[in-house]
Amino acid sequence: MSNCIFCRIASGDLPANVVYQNADVTAFRDIHPAAPVHVLIIPNQHIDNICDERAYSSDILGRMFQAANQIAAVEGLAESGYRLLLNYGPDASLSVPHLHLHLLGGRHLGPMVMPA
Amino acid sequence: MSNCIFCRIASGDLPANVVYQNADVTAFRDIHPAAPVHVLIIPNQHIDNICDERAYSSDILGRMFQAANQIAAVEGLAESGYRLLLNYGPDASLSVPHLHLHLLGGRHLGPMVMPA
Repeated sequence: MSNCIFCRIASGDLPANVVYQNADVTAFRDIHPAAPVHVLIIPNQHIDNICDERAYSSDILGRMFQAANQIAAVEGLAESGYRLLLNYGPDASLSVPHLHLHLLGGRHLGPMVMPA
Repeated sequence: MSNCIFCRIASGDLPANVVYQNADVTAFRDIHPAAPVHVLIIPNQHIDNICDERAYSSDILGRMFQAANQIAAVEGLAESGYRLLLNYGPDASLSVPHLHLHLLGGRHLGPMVMPA
């Protein structure tokens, strides 16, 4: 989709700090990092979000997580740990409508959600 | 594994507030909820964590996320949104060593990690 910024990053049409790419997925650093390591892992093929049936018609989710773990090891997070996270909808502040998995690490990450 | 509490919940050997179960996955409410909706989705078969190769030898991750989305809809989160999250290692405070996906929602969830 030519108007989707993550599709354009995956195709190389838009610049990004790409840390990993294969035939199925692309991973690049978040431009507004929430932690010392903050990488987004996306499918190269456009999938709207985690509710999109295309996320389940192949093993793309497994490939995204497998890439995330490989990146985590390269980033030195294998011992210290990391968080893998998908947001959906306004309560989770989902922004770009192209499925993306957040890889977060490099310091203690605190609670999974803001305390009430 | 008879000494794994999540294996014992999946088999029905330990009580839990189960909200969903099929041949592949079991979902139950977290006993220490971090949000109004906080459900854990686990594979019935023991997988240590997201680095365990068994997570990638089948489409179990896709099935876990598909279950999570169905539960989110039943819990009334389809419009308001939700967060799906996996922790690994000390920086992310991973506790039980049986792969589990957190489904969080029911209020605004705030940042993905504690601000530095």
